[in-house]
Amino acid sequence: MIIDRLYEEVNKKGSICLGLDTDISYIPDKLKKKYDSVSELLFQFNRTVIDETLDLVPIYKVQIAFYEAYGIEGMKAYRDTLRYIRNNKSMVIGDVKRGDISSTGKMYAKAHFSGDFECDFITVNPYMGMDSIEPYLEYVQEANKGLFVLLRTSNKGAEDIQYLNVKGYKVYNWVGDKIKEIAGNYMGRCGYSSVGVVVGATHTDEGANLRKRYENMFFLIPGYGAQGGKGREAALYLKNGNGGIVNSSRGIIADYKNYEDGEERFEYYVRQAVLLMKEDIRNG
Amino acid sequence: MIIDRLYEEVNKKGSICLGLDTDISYIPDKLKKKYDSVSELLFQFNRTVIDETLDLVPIYKVQIAFYEAYGIEGMKAYRDTLRYIRNNKSMVIGDVKRGDISSTGKMYAKAHFSGDFECDFITVNPYMGMDSIEPYLEYVQEANKGLFVLLRTSNKGAEDIQYLNVKGYKVYNWVGDKIKEIAGNYMGRCGYSSVGVVVGATHTDEGANLRKRYENMFFLIPGYGAQGGKGREAALYLKNGNGGIVNSSRGIIADYKNYEDGEERFEYYVRQAVLLMKEDIRNG
Repeated sequence: MIIDRLYEEVNKKGSICLGLDTDISYIPDKLKKKYDSVSELLFQFNRTVIDETLDLVPIYKVQIAFYEAYGIEGMKAYRDTLRYIRNNKSMVIGDVKRGDISSTGKMYAKAHFSGDFECDFITVNPYMGMDSIEPYLEYVQEANKGLFVLLRTSNKGAEDIQYLNVKGYKVYNWVGDKIKEIAGNYMGRCGYSSVGVVVGATHTDEGANLRKRYENMFFLIPGYGAQGGKGREAALYLKNGNGGIVNSSRGIIADYKNYEDGEERFEYYVRQAVLLMKEDIRNG
Repeated sequence: MIIDRLYEEVNKKGSICLGLDTDISYIPDKLKKKYDSVSELLFQFNRTVIDETLDLVPIYKVQIAFYEAYGIEGMKAYRDTLRYIRNNKSMVIGDVKRGDISSTGKMYAKAHFSGDFECDFITVNPYMGMDSIEPYLEYVQEANKGLFVLLRTSNKGAEDIQYLNVKGYKVYNWVGDKIKEIAGNYMGRCGYSSVGVVVGATHTDEGANLRKRYENMFFLIPGYGAQGGKGREAALYLKNGNGGIVNSSRGIIADYKNYEDGEERFEYYVRQAVLLMKEDIRNG
């Protein structure tokens, strides 16, 4: 089970997930001058970030929207970034949040668990129900893949649907309970399932409850940094520093912009930002 | 407002949305022999279907999963199919069901409302809340684009979340009421909004209620044919034959497989299937 590999990597390297939401505006001019095509520019920026952080982070998350936005050229950069991470023996989450009827889900599973866009994990959206999750499970079982299902997200609008009250429980708890059932069929030796959930670090009032209620589910935790979450809050969702990964993107890859010599030394500042974030979560 | 254009096209051509969920297994051998690359094969099949039906259907829906599944090559076929439809003065829905936080949503909006993957409408998933819908609205207002937000889908699993009971109303009604508020800001002269919803034709018990409750929202209605919905059921969601479009994919593009001479005459059977479906809905 792939979750055992992630668990071990987190034990070794800490619980940071580095998000490659590579907006063109984040890319230093020195790279912009060097590469003509968008696909090369996006990929080379990512490559530099990955090279600087391979020993520090257990896993990367690539947000596909930032690549789709540049059409075929962008998708080439997406493909090349995933390949580079996997060829370097690291792991990658394709943040695609797909969710559709079963016949379509099968095609999405093929798309993101094999071929050009192959990832180790992907994110999926449960709104259409549990039969929309099923097509991916065959890959979890047989191809050593994993899922993070959206449960309670980090944005303000999370309250619109996820927080609706159904017989005393919030919608996200109903979703979580259903996913927990499925997750039980894909347990790793580490005590967590290869079917995990996305739980934002920005609403922390129920952090301890969530961790307890879903003790066997690995958490992908967005919302740290640029979205307002703090190390202390993120740490609430971990158990002995494991059982979850805290994602940060802008806060790491664009942090260099806060320094006068940032442009020249952006490689240094990327590394620095990861180290500071690790410290922040450890002291949480 | 783009919804006025769709409304007029439906008045002229009827309420069918032709779904290009082009699975390789649907493609006749005679085309498979002719084209070497997957991108050319997928596109040429679609081109033939489009050529045969341009005068019969107001709009096409292209399910991106079937193209993502073939990586970069598939995405080229997706791009070329969208372009071909738009260059032929028809309209196209990108069935992408995206949904994410605002900064990511902006990139998805750019991806699917401009550039290589430009569509007239896209489908979006509301699970993350109304702020995940917002980034697309700028394009609805300023670039003559439209949305179909998932409300109540056509699959069995729809019941898992969409049917949960919140204070006597189902989750999909809470979602619908929120979208209705937004939709009110993007009304066309035809009495419908450019922000519509996806309502499956497979659960018809509340068809008339839904049509009444959301009288100004245009419906994208999946589930007809291969998914079990009938013309009579689909017609419940229309108003004087307008106000919605009924999608069919497999039932049209793979119908030729039911006939002995299907392979040779698949162009004929595609057209025939559309004509029969129109009749079925009209008599509904």
